[in-house]
Amino acid sequence: MSDAPDVDELTPPQRTLMGPGPSDVHPRVLRAMSTPLVGHLDPSFIDIMNEVQELLRYTFRTDNQWTIPVSGTGSASMEAAIGNLVEPGDTMLVPTNGYFGGRMKSMAERAGGEVVEVEAPWGEPLDPADVQAAFDEHQPDIFGFVHAETSTGVLQPNVPELTDIAHSHDAYVVADTVTSLGGVEFRADEWDVDVAYSGPQKCLSCPPGASPLTLNDRAMDKVLSREELTRSWYLDLSLLEGYWGDDRSYHHTAPITNVYALREALRLVAEEGIEERWDRHLRVAGALKSGVEAMGLEMNAADDYWLPSLNAVRVPDGADDGEVISYLLEQYDLEIASGLGDLDGDIFRIGCMGHSANPKNVTYLLASLADALDAQGVDVDGDEALDAAAAQLRG
Amino acid sequence: MSDAPDVDELTPPQRTLMGPGPSDVHPRVLRAMSTPLVGHLDPSFIDIMNEVQELLRYTFRTDNQWTIPVSGTGSASMEAAIGNLVEPGDTMLVPTNGYFGGRMKSMAERAGGEVVEVEAPWGEPLDPADVQAAFDEHQPDIFGFVHAETSTGVLQPNVPELTDIAHSHDAYVVADTVTSLGGVEFRADEWDVDVAYSGPQKCLSCPPGASPLTLNDRAMDKVLSREELTRSWYLDLSLLEGYWGDDRSYHHTAPITNVYALREALRLVAEEGIEERWDRHLRVAGALKSGVEAMGLEMNAADDYWLPSLNAVRVPDGADDGEVISYLLEQYDLEIASGLGDLDGDIFRIGCMGHSANPKNVTYLLASLADALDAQGVDVDGDEALDAAAAQLRG
Repeated sequence: MSDAPDVDELTPPQRTLMGPGPSDVHPRVLRAMSTPLVGHLDPSFIDIMNEVQELLRYTFRTDNQWTIPVSGTGSASMEAAIGNLVEPGDTMLVPTNGYFGGRMKSMAERAGGEVVEVEAPWGEPLDPADVQAAFDEHQPDIFGFVHAETSTGVLQPNVPELTDIAHSHDAYVVADTVTSLGGVEFRADEWDVDVAYSGPQKCLSCPPGASPLTLNDRAMDKVLSREELTRSWYLDLSLLEGYWGDDRSYHHTAPITNVYALREALRLVAEEGIEERWDRHLRVAGALKSGVEAMGLEMNAADDYWLPSLNAVRVPDGADDGEVISYLLEQYDLEIASGLGDLDGDIFRIGCMGHSANPKNVTYLLASLADALDAQGVDVDGDEALDAAAAQLRG
Repeated sequence: MSDAPDVDELTPPQRTLMGPGPSDVHPRVLRAMSTPLVGHLDPSFIDIMNEVQELLRYTFRTDNQWTIPVSGTGSASMEAAIGNLVEPGDTMLVPTNGYFGGRMKSMAERAGGEVVEVEAPWGEPLDPADVQAAFDEHQPDIFGFVHAETSTGVLQPNVPELTDIAHSHDAYVVADTVTSLGGVEFRADEWDVDVAYSGPQKCLSCPPGASPLTLNDRAMDKVLSREELTRSWYLDLSLLEGYWGDDRSYHHTAPITNVYALREALRLVAEEGIEERWDRHLRVAGALKSGVEAMGLEMNAADDYWLPSLNAVRVPDGADDGEVISYLLEQYDLEIASGLGDLDGDIFRIGCMGHSANPKNVTYLLASLADALDAQGVDVDGDEALDAAAAQLRG
């Protein structure tokens, strides 16, 4: 048995976070995290829970009563959505056009469901005609799609069209909004999405640990009338209903500090205004996009489904993605990420999310990336990049 | 759709936390939580992960390689333990002497296991003879017990005797150390416990959100050779092994800030020394116990299995537990809790955990409790209580 380890004071490097998440956290949110705790059943915490739920509804653009932070990171809210909605014997339709459709598949199968797929290449959105054909062929009970694919930088357009197809087949729609909520237009009620989940560490710029989830009454009715218990006790929404619903009775100890942080992050959303926040992401990420294009690089996604919060940039000939990423981290304390799966080695993934979506970060990113490519002998035009970004930021 | 909610700055009341958790968080841990984030795959975060694992091993008194914080609150590490170890067809033996044996049962059943029970009344520990009889009758594959029962304030003595019984039947032992780890003597390796889990917000005085778990090689071998996938993707240890093991490959986004906080809370354990920390809990909670007894109140648990971290005190005749608890919260900003289940209305649950286990909190608790009972017309001797506590603290 070891003696007491001698571990130094916590002094992590000061990074600029422009990867696929976490994004830079606003100082007000960091400050909220150092607030001394009250108990998870304290009357004052009940008020805080109500406020967080109200702010989440605003951010999801929904009136769904059943709107909560799940006690875990984004994958926990994802599994809470899928694991509760999918019952043994149900069929779930999932997409193949990115990393997170595969995760949906694995979660649905573990829940006892059958999984069928609607195909699109990595780097492309789903085509509604393909979704229609998959419904006609498989008659799935649940349809999951990824609104903002973090692995490919692709925005799924035509959401109302997709939900129409699903509802005309009496299916439930589950939307992955991990990389869109609070940064890219998403309207749960108006677009008729039954269930949506997200993570806090992307466009909400909140440390991970309590993750947004919303279900409409139709979806919650299905969950509450399950014949077989949900396979996870921790994520069982019929039990969580006791804590986050009217009773406020004990289920598990909520991550109090993460709820404090989420409350502050969502207050920042409300102060800015959700539509103004979507506009800011378009404008600031637009500057980033104009800059990398002016530098001579190419976006991986077509303009019609460009995802402002996650910019997939083609790795130029002559550059090694891993070396560029390491250079940026070591020389500039700047985090961006490489591609995953089918796009491994082909793209850089550059986030522009929440508090990170600001002119300083974008300017710094463009100058640093130009230097990193230059250091590899790849000829890019950094001055053009900065001029183009500045022009875009001026509007 | 609602307009942007107008939610005020976060100003929760300043409580003294002497309930069943969370406990008061050390200022150094609160400060760590306001540290700006690095990414969950940042090389500097890998170092932090290593340090947290090393500190957790020290605190669990184990050399188990497989020692991690699970990305959720204590019930998540509990379900990670049970949900991975229990395979469909396995039989798990659980206790009936408190609230958390019931939770073990529900988790084991959801994992596809059969559950059998070993009985003891609420407020009593398990008798090894009963455990032996249950093994002889049911031949369970897994035996779960609660080392420190938060619902009853009972410490389970004779742990090595229990693990001997289980291992002579080739079973695996799972220990719930939620309310003991870091405050009450627990020795995973010396006592031959295969799997133990805990929560951070009790004797570690860390905000909830990343929860300790350790498995020895024997238990991890069972997990890694499962025929059927674990029913939760989020808590699947065979996948988490990729992130917390040698690969450090992406599974889900770790709750970075909660890992920072846990690191600092565990540094405080290492600085104090684990055995010195157990001694402090004995001494300070001993003062609390002496004080409430000198006041004329009665402990619910016999001295042989008194749990220093959670003191179950009988509600005296003439007092209403709910009114006393509300009075303490409203007049003194002091949190204690009522009984659960079979002990509902019969006991107060008074925590003395981690940073809360200090003379100031105990003195305040005794004076406030005496006043609260007095306000209800119950005759107690507050002066005697404070004298007895002070004598105990002097040692």
